[in-house]
Amino acid sequence: MEHYLKTDEWRIIESGFHPEFAECSEAIFSIGNGRMGQRANFEEGYGGQSLQGSYVAGVYYPDKTRVGWWKNGYPEYFAKVLNSVNWIGLDIEIEGERLDLNAAEVLQFERELDMKRGVLSRQFQLRFPSGKEIEVSAVRFVSMRRDEVGAIRYGMKALNFTGQARIIPFLDFDVVNQDSNYDEKFWEEVERRTGSQKAAIVARTKKLDFQLASAMRYEWWTGDKIQTLYPETIERDKYVANSFEVTLEEGQDNCLYKYASVCSSMNHAPSALLDTADERASEARRAGFDVLLQEHTDHWAAQWEKSDIRIKGDASAQQGIRFNIFQLHQTYTGEDERLNIGPKGFTGEKYGGSTYWDTEAYCLPFYLSTAPQKVAKNLLVYRYDQLGKAIENAAKLGFENGAALYPMVTMNGEECHNEWEITFEEIHRNGAIAFAIYDYIRHTLDASYLFEGGLEVLTGIARFWFQRFHYSQRKRAFVMHGVTGPNEYENNINNNWYTNYIAAWCMRYTADCFDRCKQEDAKRTEALSSRLDWSKEEGMQWRDRADRVYLPQDEEHGVFEQHEGFMDKELVPAERLDPDERPINQHWSWDRILRSCFIKQADVLQGVYLFSEEFDRETHERNFDFAWEKWTRPMSSTCARRVWTWTITTRKLQKAFISPAWQALG
Amino acid sequence: MEHYLKTDEWRIIESGFHPEFAECSEAIFSIGNGRMGQRANFEEGYGGQSLQGSYVAGVYYPDKTRVGWWKNGYPEYFAKVLNSVNWIGLDIEIEGERLDLNAAEVLQFERELDMKRGVLSRQFQLRFPSGKEIEVSAVRFVSMRRDEVGAIRYGMKALNFTGQARIIPFLDFDVVNQDSNYDEKFWEEVERRTGSQKAAIVARTKKLDFQLASAMRYEWWTGDKIQTLYPETIERDKYVANSFEVTLEEGQDNCLYKYASVCSSMNHAPSALLDTADERASEARRAGFDVLLQEHTDHWAAQWEKSDIRIKGDASAQQGIRFNIFQLHQTYTGEDERLNIGPKGFTGEKYGGSTYWDTEAYCLPFYLSTAPQKVAKNLLVYRYDQLGKAIENAAKLGFENGAALYPMVTMNGEECHNEWEITFEEIHRNGAIAFAIYDYIRHTLDASYLFEGGLEVLTGIARFWFQRFHYSQRKRAFVMHGVTGPNEYENNINNNWYTNYIAAWCMRYTADCFDRCKQEDAKRTEALSSRLDWSKEEGMQWRDRADRVYLPQDEEHGVFEQHEGFMDKELVPAERLDPDERPINQHWSWDRILRSCFIKQADVLQGVYLFSEEFDRETHERNFDFAWEKWTRPMSSTCARRVWTWTITTRKLQKAFISPAWQALG
Repeated sequence: MEHYLKTDEWRIIESGFHPEFAECSEAIFSIGNGRMGQRANFEEGYGGQSLQGSYVAGVYYPDKTRVGWWKNGYPEYFAKVLNSVNWIGLDIEIEGERLDLNAAEVLQFERELDMKRGVLSRQFQLRFPSGKEIEVSAVRFVSMRRDEVGAIRYGMKALNFTGQARIIPFLDFDVVNQDSNYDEKFWEEVERRTGSQKAAIVARTKKLDFQLASAMRYEWWTGDKIQTLYPETIERDKYVANSFEVTLEEGQDNCLYKYASVCSSMNHAPSALLDTADERASEARRAGFDVLLQEHTDHWAAQWEKSDIRIKGDASAQQGIRFNIFQLHQTYTGEDERLNIGPKGFTGEKYGGSTYWDTEAYCLPFYLSTAPQKVAKNLLVYRYDQLGKAIENAAKLGFENGAALYPMVTMNGEECHNEWEITFEEIHRNGAIAFAIYDYIRHTLDASYLFEGGLEVLTGIARFWFQRFHYSQRKRAFVMHGVTGPNEYENNINNNWYTNYIAAWCMRYTADCFDRCKQEDAKRTEALSSRLDWSKEEGMQWRDRADRVYLPQDEEHGVFEQHEGFMDKELVPAERLDPDERPINQHWSWDRILRSCFIKQADVLQGVYLFSEEFDRETHERNFDFAWEKWTRPMSSTCARRVWTWTITTRKLQKAFISPAWQALG
Repeated sequence: MEHYLKTDEWRIIESGFHPEFAECSEAIFSIGNGRMGQRANFEEGYGGQSLQGSYVAGVYYPDKTRVGWWKNGYPEYFAKVLNSVNWIGLDIEIEGERLDLNAAEVLQFERELDMKRGVLSRQFQLRFPSGKEIEVSAVRFVSMRRDEVGAIRYGMKALNFTGQARIIPFLDFDVVNQDSNYDEKFWEEVERRTGSQKAAIVARTKKLDFQLASAMRYEWWTGDKIQTLYPETIERDKYVANSFEVTLEEGQDNCLYKYASVCSSMNHAPSALLDTADERASEARRAGFDVLLQEHTDHWAAQWEKSDIRIKGDASAQQGIRFNIFQLHQTYTGEDERLNIGPKGFTGEKYGGSTYWDTEAYCLPFYLSTAPQKVAKNLLVYRYDQLGKAIENAAKLGFENGAALYPMVTMNGEECHNEWEITFEEIHRNGAIAFAIYDYIRHTLDASYLFEGGLEVLTGIARFWFQRFHYSQRKRAFVMHGVTGPNEYENNINNNWYTNYIAAWCMRYTADCFDRCKQEDAKRTEALSSRLDWSKEEGMQWRDRADRVYLPQDEEHGVFEQHEGFMDKELVPAERLDPDERPINQHWSWDRILRSCFIKQADVLQGVYLFSEEFDRETHERNFDFAWEKWTRPMSSTCARRVWTWTITTRKLQKAFISPAWQALG
C-alpha cells in the first residue's frame, strides 16, 4: 500500500490520483499546529470515500459507552476528540458542473506535504463530463505562529473554455464523528453572523459545553488584481457561507485566498468567542497569505534546526524519521499543560484522540531531546493535574491509602477504556508514568519537579504497586496476578516480568526520592510527607516488598520469561507461519493469538531497554537474540539488531529511536 | 428480597401488592407450555415499572451486535428470542378512570402461581381516586394440551357504586425488546382482521421472516348470563381490538373470558396462519374456559406423577425444587427437536432465550429421569442438527479435519456470543455436549443413537480437543492454554483441570464408541468411519494424547488444582470478606474478582461429580472439603455437604439434584 507514495527526504508525495487510498491519504497528508489539525480533505469537497476531519485539541465529547457485556467498574462514557468545524470548505460549480475529483476525469494530480515547511499543496488538472478542462493549484497550512488560524490559496485556471463559476466559501459545524457509538451528532449551534466576504459561527457540544467559534475572510484575485465582490450570504443551522459568481477566462490565473480562524472556549470567554474568531480571521487577511506563510515556515525552520535527525544513504528511512518528527511537533507543542498527544494526532478519529501511556513511554523522550524543557515538563504536569482522578480510579478497583492508577485512556483523568483485560489489567502504564519523572530528572537535572508534584505522583503509584502484589505461600515471594503487559497479545497473565520489574523499581525509586528530597530541603520534604501521610516505615516496606518480588526467568535459555507459562507455549518460528495468515491479527481469532508465542510488542525487551544500565551486555544480547532469532527476525527490518546495539550504548540517540525501533520489533 | 413471597409447598404466593418487585414478580409468576410463554403482566396494563413479555419458542431475531472492541471471529449478530404479541391485553376504564394498580389505592392484593395445576391467578380490590371501589379476580393459563392457546377469566365487581365501564380486549404486536441493542422494533405487520367479538393479526420479523398470527375471541358474562355485545372495532398498525361499554351494577359479578391463540410460521404455512390462528381461538371459545382448564390441569397432574420430588420437613426446599421442576417442564416439553432451553425460559429476555451448555450439563439429567426418552433424545438431536455449524465455527478459529466447537450461545448453531474469554475460550461446553451422549446411553441403554448421530458429534468434538492441546517441552505433557472453565471468575487460564479432564475423557470415550459400534454393527461402523474419514490410527492417537494430558494437582492439600497458578493466590476464607462488599460481583471490579480465590462455579467439583465413579470416596471428600471449608461454607446452605455425599452414592437422584446443589455451592 505504501508504495503509492514517492520517497523523498523532505516531502510526502502522491503523484497521480489514488482514489482507492483516499481516506489513507487524508490522514497521511494531515496538517496541524498543536492547537488544531485538519485532515487532507479537498477544499472543494469530494464525492468518493472520505472522512472530513477537523480537530481541536482538548475539545472532546463523552460518548455513551458501547460494550458487549458490562463489567463492574467500566466507565459510563468514552471520551473522544470531536470532529469539528469544516473551515476549509469551498464549493465550486462551473457552468452547472460541480468541481469534484470523483465526478470528473483526472488528467493530472500531484499532492505534496512539505514537512520542512509544514505546507500541504495539491495541483491537478481535470476534464468535466462536458469536456471543459480546468487546472487547480491549492496550498494550505495551519499556522504554527498563530495557532487559531489556517490559510488557503486556491488557484484556478480554465484551460479550454471561458465560463461562469459559482464559488461558495463556507464554515460548517454540521459534521459527524465516524466513531460515534450511536450515530449521534455532537454539535449544536449557538450563534452565527454573515456579511460580505465574511462569516462566523459558534457551536457548542451537546455535553460538557465546549464552545468553538470559527470565522472566515476571503479574497478573489484575477491575475494580480484583487476583485470586488458582491456575494450573497447563505445561512442554515450550523452553517454559514457566501456565494458569488465569477467569469473564468480561458488561460487566465484566478485565485481565492481563504483565511479562517477557530477559537475555543478553553482559551476565551464564551461571550467573546464570536468577536475573537472574527478578529483573528480579519487580522490574518490583513497580514496576507505570504506573510502568514513566511512566519509559519520560519517557525518550522527553527524547529528542524533543533530536532532533525539525519540518516544517510537511506532516503526512505530519512523520510520516515522526519515524518515521525513532523507529526510529533505538529500534534503537541507543549504550550498548554491541559493538552496531550492522541495516538493519531490530528489525522483521524481512531483511539479517540485521548491520552495513552505511549505519551510517557515513547513521546516524552523525543521532546526531552528536541524541545525546550517546559514541553516535556508540561506532559508531567498534565498527569500531576489528574492525580486526584487516578486515586479515585484506583479506589474503584479496591485500592486504598492514596494509591493511584492512571487510566489507560483519558481526556480529563477519568478512565474511558472499557475492555477489562486492558482497563483493569494493563496497569504497567503506571510504571511508564513514574519512569517519565525519573527520565525527566536525569535528562534535565531539574529535581525540583519532585517538590512540584513529582513526588506526589510517585507516591500514589508506589502505593498502588505495593497493594497490587500479594504474597504467594507456594512461591515464597510477592507475585502480581491478572495483568496485561505491554504485549497486548497476552491477557490476564501472572507475573509479567516487565510489570513486576518496573513496579519493584518504582517502589525503590520513590523511597529514594524521599531521601533525596530530604537532603535537598528537609523542611519542605517533612511538610510533603506529612501531607501525604508518608513515613520512613512506608518507604522501608516498599523496599522490602520490591526485594521480594517474583521475576520469572528461564534457566535453559538464560532469559527473562515474559510471564509465567510463556515457555510452555509451542515455540514456533514466525517463518513457519502461513503467509496467507499474516498479519495474524487480521486472520486469527483472539484466543489463537493469545496462545501463540507471537507477540505484539517486545515486552521483556521494553524493560531491558528502560533499565539498560542494570543489565550487562550479555544479558541484553541473550534476551534480544531470544526474541529476535526465533520470532521477530522474519517480521522485522534487517537493521533492528543494529539499532538495538546502538541504542543501548548511545543514551541520547536511544530516545529519538525508541519509537521506530519498537515498531520494527513489533 | 425473596421474603416478600410466602412459603407453600405447591404455590408461589404474593400476598399484598409489592410494586417495588413488580418486574421480579412478572418473571417469577410466568407461565408457559414449551411453545409459548407469558410473563405475569397484568391484563389491564400497569403504569409502573413493567416489562410486558410474551415469547414464542424458536422465534428469534439476529440483533446487530454491540461490542466495545471488535475481535476477529466475533459474530455479526446476537440472536434473541423476541418479545411478541401482547395477547392478554384488556384495557378497562370505569367512568373515565383507567383501571391501573399504579394509579389507585390497592386495598387488597393476592397473586398465586399454582404449580400443581399450572395456573396463575390474581385477586385484588382497589379504590379509584374518585372513591369507587372494585374487586377483580383474574385467572389465566397457557394450555399444555393446546400449545397455541391461552385463556383468561377476568372477573370484576363494583363494590360501592354502579357505573359504566369501557372494556377493550386487544392484540398488540407493537412491542419492544428490553434488550434490543439499538432500540429497534423488530416486528412489522402483515395483515389484520377485526369483527364483532373477534380480531386477528399477523406480523413478521424484520429479519429472517418469522411470522406469527394471533387471534382472539371473548365473552362478557353478568352473573351466570352471557351478554350480547355490539362492540366497535379498533385497528391501527400492528394492533387490533374491540371496544364495548357495560354497566357494572354494585355487588354484581361480571366476567370476561378471553381466548387467544398464537401460531407460528415454524409450524404452519404463512398463507394459512391467519385462518389457523382464528380457528384455534374459535375452537377454544367453543370448548369453553372450564374444559380448557380441566385438560390443562389433567396434563400437569400426569406430569407431576412422573416428576415430583418430595422433600419432607422443609417447606421452603419443597417449594424451591417444585419451582425448578415446574419451570423445566413449562419451558421445554421435548415435542420439537428444533427447540431448546433458554436460561430464563419464558420469564424474561436476559440471555436472549438462547441455548447454552447448561442444557446438557444441568437440564438433560432431569429430563432423562422424569420424561419420556424422546424428550432427552431431542435435546441430543438438536446438537446433531447443528454439527455442521459447529464445524464451521471451529474452522473460523483455525481448527481442521472436521473438528467441531459448539457455540457458547446459539439459536441456529451459529455462535452469538461476543466476549472473547467466553466465546473463544469457555470451550468446556464441548465436553458437556459429549458427556450428554454418554449420559443418555448409560441411562436409556439406547446405544443405537451412536449410529444416528452420536458418533458424528463425538468425533467432531474429539478432533477439536485433540488439536486444542499442544505439547509443552518443559512439562513433557500435553497442555491446554487459554481457556475459561465452568468457573467464569477465571479467564484465559492454562490447564483448567476440569476442561483437561473432560477433554481427555472425550477422546478416550469416542475411541471406545467406535469399538463398541464395530462390535454391534461392523458394516455400518465401517461406512460411518469412511464417511468421517476416521481410522483406527486416529483413535490410537486420541488415546495416546489423552494419556499424556497434564492435570494440575496440589500435593500439599492432595486436591486437584483448578488451574495452573490457583494455589499461588491469596487463599482468604470467605468469612473474612466485608459483608458490605458481598455479593462481590456487584462490588468488585472484574480484575479483582479474577485474582481472588473466590469462584462462581465449583469448577473442580463439577468434574469430580461428573466422573464420580473414577475417584474414590477420599478423593471426593478431600476435594469437596477443600472448596467447602475454605471458601464455600460461609456462602452456602448448610445441607450442601449432605447433598454431595448423597449424590455421589445415589446415581439416580444425583441427576435431579445437580442443579440446586451447584447453586448452593456457587
